[in-house]
Amino acid sequence: MNYTANFKLKNNILIYLSVLFLAFGCKESAVKSGIKVDNIEALNNAIKDAKPGDNIVLANGVWKDVEIKFRGHGTKDNPIVLSAETAGKVSIEGKSYLKFGGQHLEVEGLHFKNGYSPSRAVVEFKINDDEIANNCKITNCVIEDFNKLKRDDSDLWVNFWGRHNELSNCYIAGKTNRGPTIRVNLEGIESINNYHQIVNNHFGPRPVKGGPSGETIQLGNSFTSMAPSYTMVANNLFEECNGEVEVISSKTNFNEFRNNVFYKSEGSLVTRHGNYCTIDGNYFIGDGVNENYGGIRIINTGHWVTNNYFFNLKGTSFRSPLAVMNGIPKSPQNRYNQVTDVVVAYNTYVNCSTPWQFGVGTNIAQADVLPKSEIRSARAVRTTVANNVIYNETGLEAIVIENDKADGVTFKNNIVDNKGVKFNGFDGGIKEVSLSLKIISENIKIPTGVPNDIEPYVGFDFGNIKTDLFGKSRENNNSIGAIIGVDVANPNILDKSKYGTDWFSNEVEPSDPVSHVVTNASEIQAKIDAANKGDIIVLSPGVYNVEKSLVINKAITIQSKKGEKAQVVFNGTANSPLFSLNPKGKLTVNNLDLKGNNTNYAFASLKENMSNHFGLTVSNTEISNFNYVLKVFKESFSERITFNNTNISDCLNGIELSGEINAKGDYNTEYLTIDSCKFNNVKANVVDYYRGGYDESTIGGNLIVSNSTFTNCGVKEDNRILLNHHGIVNVNITGNTFKNNPVAFVSVLWGAKNNAQSNNTISNSGQIKVQENLEMKLMY
Amino acid sequence: MNYTANFKLKNNILIYLSVLFLAFGCKESAVKSGIKVDNIEALNNAIKDAKPGDNIVLANGVWKDVEIKFRGHGTKDNPIVLSAETAGKVSIEGKSYLKFGGQHLEVEGLHFKNGYSPSRAVVEFKINDDEIANNCKITNCVIEDFNKLKRDDSDLWVNFWGRHNELSNCYIAGKTNRGPTIRVNLEGIESINNYHQIVNNHFGPRPVKGGPSGETIQLGNSFTSMAPSYTMVANNLFEECNGEVEVISSKTNFNEFRNNVFYKSEGSLVTRHGNYCTIDGNYFIGDGVNENYGGIRIINTGHWVTNNYFFNLKGTSFRSPLAVMNGIPKSPQNRYNQVTDVVVAYNTYVNCSTPWQFGVGTNIAQADVLPKSEIRSARAVRTTVANNVIYNETGLEAIVIENDKADGVTFKNNIVDNKGVKFNGFDGGIKEVSLSLKIISENIKIPTGVPNDIEPYVGFDFGNIKTDLFGKSRENNNSIGAIIGVDVANPNILDKSKYGTDWFSNEVEPSDPVSHVVTNASEIQAKIDAANKGDIIVLSPGVYNVEKSLVINKAITIQSKKGEKAQVVFNGTANSPLFSLNPKGKLTVNNLDLKGNNTNYAFASLKENMSNHFGLTVSNTEISNFNYVLKVFKESFSERITFNNTNISDCLNGIELSGEINAKGDYNTEYLTIDSCKFNNVKANVVDYYRGGYDESTIGGNLIVSNSTFTNCGVKEDNRILLNHHGIVNVNITGNTFKNNPVAFVSVLWGAKNNAQSNNTISNSGQIKVQENLEMKLMY
Repeated sequence: MNYTANFKLKNNILIYLSVLFLAFGCKESAVKSGIKVDNIEALNNAIKDAKPGDNIVLANGVWKDVEIKFRGHGTKDNPIVLSAETAGKVSIEGKSYLKFGGQHLEVEGLHFKNGYSPSRAVVEFKINDDEIANNCKITNCVIEDFNKLKRDDSDLWVNFWGRHNELSNCYIAGKTNRGPTIRVNLEGIESINNYHQIVNNHFGPRPVKGGPSGETIQLGNSFTSMAPSYTMVANNLFEECNGEVEVISSKTNFNEFRNNVFYKSEGSLVTRHGNYCTIDGNYFIGDGVNENYGGIRIINTGHWVTNNYFFNLKGTSFRSPLAVMNGIPKSPQNRYNQVTDVVVAYNTYVNCSTPWQFGVGTNIAQADVLPKSEIRSARAVRTTVANNVIYNETGLEAIVIENDKADGVTFKNNIVDNKGVKFNGFDGGIKEVSLSLKIISENIKIPTGVPNDIEPYVGFDFGNIKTDLFGKSRENNNSIGAIIGVDVANPNILDKSKYGTDWFSNEVEPSDPVSHVVTNASEIQAKIDAANKGDIIVLSPGVYNVEKSLVINKAITIQSKKGEKAQVVFNGTANSPLFSLNPKGKLTVNNLDLKGNNTNYAFASLKENMSNHFGLTVSNTEISNFNYVLKVFKESFSERITFNNTNISDCLNGIELSGEINAKGDYNTEYLTIDSCKFNNVKANVVDYYRGGYDESTIGGNLIVSNSTFTNCGVKEDNRILLNHHGIVNVNITGNTFKNNPVAFVSVLWGAKNNAQSNNTISNSGQIKVQENLEMKLMY
Repeated sequence: MNYTANFKLKNNILIYLSVLFLAFGCKESAVKSGIKVDNIEALNNAIKDAKPGDNIVLANGVWKDVEIKFRGHGTKDNPIVLSAETAGKVSIEGKSYLKFGGQHLEVEGLHFKNGYSPSRAVVEFKINDDEIANNCKITNCVIEDFNKLKRDDSDLWVNFWGRHNELSNCYIAGKTNRGPTIRVNLEGIESINNYHQIVNNHFGPRPVKGGPSGETIQLGNSFTSMAPSYTMVANNLFEECNGEVEVISSKTNFNEFRNNVFYKSEGSLVTRHGNYCTIDGNYFIGDGVNENYGGIRIINTGHWVTNNYFFNLKGTSFRSPLAVMNGIPKSPQNRYNQVTDVVVAYNTYVNCSTPWQFGVGTNIAQADVLPKSEIRSARAVRTTVANNVIYNETGLEAIVIENDKADGVTFKNNIVDNKGVKFNGFDGGIKEVSLSLKIISENIKIPTGVPNDIEPYVGFDFGNIKTDLFGKSRENNNSIGAIIGVDVANPNILDKSKYGTDWFSNEVEPSDPVSHVVTNASEIQAKIDAANKGDIIVLSPGVYNVEKSLVINKAITIQSKKGEKAQVVFNGTANSPLFSLNPKGKLTVNNLDLKGNNTNYAFASLKENMSNHFGLTVSNTEISNFNYVLKVFKESFSERITFNNTNISDCLNGIELSGEINAKGDYNTEYLTIDSCKFNNVKANVVDYYRGGYDESTIGGNLIVSNSTFTNCGVKEDNRILLNHHGIVNVNITGNTFKNNPVAFVSVLWGAKNNAQSNNTISNSGQIKVQENLEMKLMY
């Protein structure tokens, strides 16, 4: 026991247990004190008095509104530790954060939930410019849904400064507001050459943000892109990290990405700025369907992409398994440097749609309309692609997609089993052979049978690629592809117990939804409130006169009894919604007849504090006499909004998703789908889906309008366009009938992007126009 | 003896002497064979057969037109050596070069002179992309005046590729053609992390080039500015390295500049691109007069400027002892990144005019006329200036010149003896104290008497500054300034025997000029040819009818006997000059009367192959009836052209220096001075001095027109300007009289640059106009 420490303790601090002897081999044996605290004042005092080797223990329970400034000076052998009494039983809630300042400080076992940081970060490795953390660690913790109330209020959940800090064995998921989940900062000489460790974490689902600044990890920024970082990102699981197109945005030099698993993540590992990164031994696992799962996107100089395994990825262009971008000659600092001196070697691709794309992002065709400093015309040079193995169960037309010529790339000793389909072999650099597939697990299938005469190409410094994907030495019996030999054990990459904490799991037991029958209006809200998420509210036949908005704050379905449409008549005040879509309110409406009083709304998000996403699916429903069918406000976001087999009539406004007006690339839904619907006499904003601000790498917004009929709509539409989708990148208008709509244009398609129309019948409704380039505000 | 090697030798190779035993401590003793060769075929064969430990010896004498490809594979302990029989007695002449390919190859004792490389380099550490040198060395060699014939034919004299190559103990001087003397290339992964050594060399005079691309050392380029270089430049003497504004242009990362001496060099050590350089323990020595001697100019991030000594420097702005530039926000790759995270610590400045300038290169005032991507408005941030000592025998008005605010700079614990003149102390970061000066040598004077209470400021990582200028440990008894203590030995920094070869000296015994009297025209050329450089040709009184151009190819003076002007009448053909100024032809004409036939020229350079500079001074002379007084052709250059107390009359054209028309920033003379002259009836091109192409860091071209009279001139001047000096940066027109010159403008001054006029009398001659910004072609 350390009696000196004891002497200073206040009344409300208990000395307890844990006398630890340091590991064999140390010169001195030290005694760790355990100092239990149960409120913030006691914690602050304990921190103030802490000495190397002290262990401050937070009592189990809820710690609300705690701003923890963990400052101190531990030593390598005797860190100061701040831990939960029981890992996972200490929750940090409300307006709370944790900041480190000093050295050799460790935090363990906390659960951040039900709250948000009042600061710019939840966990920060700096208290102020004079108190920066070094050799500090947060481990075995969870940060879950700790979102600021407003989507535009930017923060980070873990913000690195200093050197040699660590985020390990944590589970982090659910960020919806602006800002990368994790950022490493390099401003200031204190934070370069940082050698931070981001290891063994489980990055759980981060939903689509609907605009930029939704990375899971960002290492630096363009202004520090010259800085040597040496951050290690290893052995992490990235599960459904869908925030934006970049799961990891590496913007500094000498970072390493090793043995991570990217599982169903709608984005890529991108070397956005900075150079000389190592991307080795990672798994990129798709489902063979979703085209948003990415791989590795390369910009800049000197990266080595080795021993990676790509499976079942259907992404193309920016989201290709390997997307090598064109640069801008003499690029501005925040744009695209040319790719040079890159090595892509010993990777394996199984059943990927376009394994390799070069010249990605080329916009030479727009040279006439864009300034010279925007033209990505500089192709990759001094780049080697060697010793890779590709296996396609269905042969591809091209192994290399050349958006611009890959004439600065040397292909050596790559092989592909393309099932006999002919392709460009780049002077023998890509050879067709016949391979077999050995199944190791559901997602790990190894192409086998590489002919013995195909020896690995030995490029400059290739001797530094010492092992294969599984860590097996390449020194003897080397072979091409990510995996040497065929006799390998299942790496169990999706065994979640290998990542994150030792106490938290995001696996949920599936449960069957329960139906709750309602017979009169007054009980609807109560039934919703009492239901579990996923349950069904069933309206018995009849008319329900609802006076007050129904609050939806969980996943819920509301439907009529089979076959008979219940009618819901909403008499609520002007501009109030029948269904108020709150954070996490994911509403499915089926087979109802909804009627308003011409001043109120059918559906609306909150006007503010939409701290989490909502959702909306409407099927087989009649909607009439509303001011707005759907009104979504600024900073509200739904991943999907779907109207299906639904009739909308006699409304002043239709589906309004144009709240994001500050030209920062944000929008209100990722997917708006309108299929087999009828719109009649909707006077304005029939469909209004808007994205402002231009950044070519943010590729979202998806509108499908199909098999629907629009009649007598748009009479009060000021801009004389029926379907408004300004700035939406992916638009498909197909199989619709437009009749007697007094507008000039049914739609104005953005020709330079993925906007298409087909099989529409238009009479007395203006026309569909294609505008090649939009005038948009640049976001950078 | 190595009999295996012997067995392979051809007839014309002699085996001789030199059995060497390797140094004590090696596991095996090895025998070095000496293989003497006396022609290129034998050399090539010897190279082909060479094995580790071989020593190939070049026989003394002249080796003409030899293209040496030195390829082979030595080992660390047994390199393959190619050496002169006697160091300095083997000269490489004519069209020759030396290329290295392989590893552990060394070259010693050669003298490159009287020739030029037919390739892009004289010495190159690469034969082709598959034969790059590693661990190769050139040492104890001289490269002297090895210029291509045309100034625009670019080459390098030592061109580095690969890794771990060395240029040591060489003397290199006299480059006049385009291209840095030394370049380190980083294209390709084979050449990054190169750790080249450029050490112990004597870089002798490199004359002003007259335009850009005249660096003595260039490390990389903007396109490889992200590359880690780690080149060491140490213990070199840079003597009169005046090629351009950058003596050393560092364009990559992690380079080190240690213990070099910059002596009367008209340029700076510039961190032009790239980051994280170390500039430690260097000497920058001026003469207290010349404002072109520079110091250290900082651009980009993370440089450490420590322990340097600055003496008697009068440079300002770009050429300040410390010039910290403004950057361009989000700069294009080839422009100016912002200065961030720079440390300037423990330096000493003695008698420098403006020790520290910040915001150098700011052009915010031109924001209206220049594109945004050209505006240097980003001030230095996160920059620390600490522990420096400044001593001024004459107090300065400002210690820090703020071209733009230094508000991102932290000043800590700097002191200055400013002789009581008040200055901005930056919140105590620069304190006035009273110091003494201890004289160690002519150029090394140490400020002493730092008060004991001024402890060094301890910034982040300052503990890495372990020694002082002289290598003394800072661990105990540390103090501010470059030098700890006062009891130091003279470092003899200008003892030339410490640098360069062990056999060559550039010190010349001064000799008195000899006068050679001439009495008739036919003997003038013969006397010139027979004279030594510096001699004087004296024309006896009388008239000399010269029919053929007089060839001037050395420094020579031609003058009349005192008091009486000899008349030289030139009847040469049209467009031929009386004095043909050849390479190295530095002509002084004094007290003559020169008369042409209205079709020929008084003075002209060669039309081509001006492989070295000329010079011209004309005093007390009458010049009349020429087509051109002086006609200087493209790719000709004179450091100075001076007309003094000379009358020029009845000529079709005057002084024509406008040959450089390809807008690459070149021009024909550095200084054109016209003082106390009379121009009468010169019809066109009275003065025509031109520079095309804009790059703000090339700051040359100097025109002085003073105390002169211009009458009846410019009648045939198409552009209606009397004194043409388009693009010349420094212009001073003062004390002249302009009378009855039928032009619109006497001069059009460039307002944004250092163009001035004063005390001129203008009558019936148009006016002097100031144009703030010229339209010029950008060179980058």
